[in-house]
Amino acid sequence: MTVRESDLIDKIDRAFRRRGEVSPEVRLGMGDDAALFRPRASHEMILTCDWFLEGTHFLQEEQPPDSLGWKCLARAVSDIAAMGGVPRCFLLSLALPDSHTGRWLDEFLAGLRRASRKFGCVLAGGDTTRRREISMNVTVVGDVPTGRAVVRSGAGPGELIYVSGRLGEAELGLAVLRQSRRRGNPKNLLTKKHLYPEPRLALGQWVREKRLASSMMDLSDGLSSDLWRLCAASGVGARLESRTLPRLQNADMARKHGLDPLRLALHGGDDYELLFTVPLRKRKLLPRAFQGIPLTPIGTITKQSKLVLRDENGREQLLTAGGWDPFRKSGA
Amino acid sequence: MTVRESDLIDKIDRAFRRRGEVSPEVRLGMGDDAALFRPRASHEMILTCDWFLEGTHFLQEEQPPDSLGWKCLARAVSDIAAMGGVPRCFLLSLALPDSHTGRWLDEFLAGLRRASRKFGCVLAGGDTTRRREISMNVTVVGDVPTGRAVVRSGAGPGELIYVSGRLGEAELGLAVLRQSRRRGNPKNLLTKKHLYPEPRLALGQWVREKRLASSMMDLSDGLSSDLWRLCAASGVGARLESRTLPRLQNADMARKHGLDPLRLALHGGDDYELLFTVPLRKRKLLPRAFQGIPLTPIGTITKQSKLVLRDENGREQLLTAGGWDPFRKSGA
Repeated sequence: MTVRESDLIDKIDRAFRRRGEVSPEVRLGMGDDAALFRPRASHEMILTCDWFLEGTHFLQEEQPPDSLGWKCLARAVSDIAAMGGVPRCFLLSLALPDSHTGRWLDEFLAGLRRASRKFGCVLAGGDTTRRREISMNVTVVGDVPTGRAVVRSGAGPGELIYVSGRLGEAELGLAVLRQSRRRGNPKNLLTKKHLYPEPRLALGQWVREKRLASSMMDLSDGLSSDLWRLCAASGVGARLESRTLPRLQNADMARKHGLDPLRLALHGGDDYELLFTVPLRKRKLLPRAFQGIPLTPIGTITKQSKLVLRDENGREQLLTAGGWDPFRKSGA
Repeated sequence: MTVRESDLIDKIDRAFRRRGEVSPEVRLGMGDDAALFRPRASHEMILTCDWFLEGTHFLQEEQPPDSLGWKCLARAVSDIAAMGGVPRCFLLSLALPDSHTGRWLDEFLAGLRRASRKFGCVLAGGDTTRRREISMNVTVVGDVPTGRAVVRSGAGPGELIYVSGRLGEAELGLAVLRQSRRRGNPKNLLTKKHLYPEPRLALGQWVREKRLASSMMDLSDGLSSDLWRLCAASGVGARLESRTLPRLQNADMARKHGLDPLRLALHGGDDYELLFTVPLRKRKLLPRAFQGIPLTPIGTITKQSKLVLRDENGREQLLTAGGWDPFRKSGA
């Protein structure tokens, strides 16, 4: 089978256009030299891009193509959520083997289209090429009222550290997938968080609108790694209370896979929950949950630039970043 | 050697920041969840992304790292030029083997920085990861006064087809590189067009400001392939006059490498010249050259959707797209 690049672009374009997902803000989609996007007045643009590479970020035999389509967009949209922004459009760069331009691509595009609709983020353009391994790069353009984005660098000593959701579920889902040796099933709740993560868009926008947070980011590589980045950007440290970390409800399932729920909560990747810091005086404005997603205070920002974990007996130990880093050979 | 992702981001960030290339429009560079970009009033954004992959788009042994840095940005900026736009900022997604995070990366960043300064396009963010083969994806954000971008779809029958520069030089440069079995030297004029292409930004903007063109695109895959795309987008065809095609000045050098200058002009890739169509009544507004770059009328837009080449004796033959397509196994 020989496929031309233009056929592939047409296929991608059709998958999106026939459902009428054309946005008044995106004037030209795929097929011209570039896309045109009309920004809203009094808004600034949020720009982010994310690699999603076979062998590095996913294994083909573990993930159904539909989930790869969903997840490649969800991961990048999560960066928009982390700034309190609204996603507007995305560019898809896709490199595929010839063998994947038929049914595999159809399923991939179905997952991508579902995510695109769910997040309100339309396809504006992209680039396709042939490659032995599947490679993707997604650029998302979002916006936020000018000057109102919530960045990483605003955390101050004494502020409370909050996290959304429960940590470690995606990493447990990955372990379940690996041991089952079958492709994930979208209906399995244990693997859903790994295969079909939901960026916390409504929460991020609410936190920004209510001016609740001094800093915010999303958790993609694991709490210990990501909190360290937030602290480094803000020139501060943090003390976490191990007792309060919102972890798996299904602890037995974790232990069955040889995983410790606390370690999963500290170092597990791919959760795409939000991590943010709240000045003490705003504490009472935070509900226990937002649209059903738990919001949990897990510790305090400190002056000294180190991460400390306090256990249930009040003993403190240094916490080192143990999350995912593509340049570190051995995992956490 | 073990490198952390954060070290790599710092290195890239430092390479750009220490020279003071901070733009008032880019509020956050690398290191946060995403970049913030403030659009100019009455402008719309131009968005484009481009793969640049080892083995598919370049061979490492042929290209000095400095030229890869230059070219990865130049290729994407050329899409902005093709719409008459101004490049503003870019995102760099870079995947590298560990062995390339030292001197290779320094040289790569030096070339990228030169290009960034030359094109007035600042680094706003990106993503890095580890990978056996070098992979790059560059997203460029540009802008243009709202409603004034020159797109591919506006060509009408009877209009003249113009091209900038001379066609086939980059392809000849590639042949010279391949036969010399040495990495390209930036001072060799024969290989310069392949290694350090210059997107036609000033020309594109001038064409747009003067409203000279009904359609425009850049030549990346070869005239026969790209003109076909412009015609398809406009629902027209074209007749090229073989006699007028601006080809290599150094025809002997081409023949020495077994290449025919006419075939190079028709099918050679990587020229990054501009192709545009001009209504007859505007013909007299086009000079023979713009800032030293020849502007040559090479044919006419026709009603029937096919490409025809007329030779020096007036004989016509069908021209099929013979430029570069990553999904076609055998080249032109």
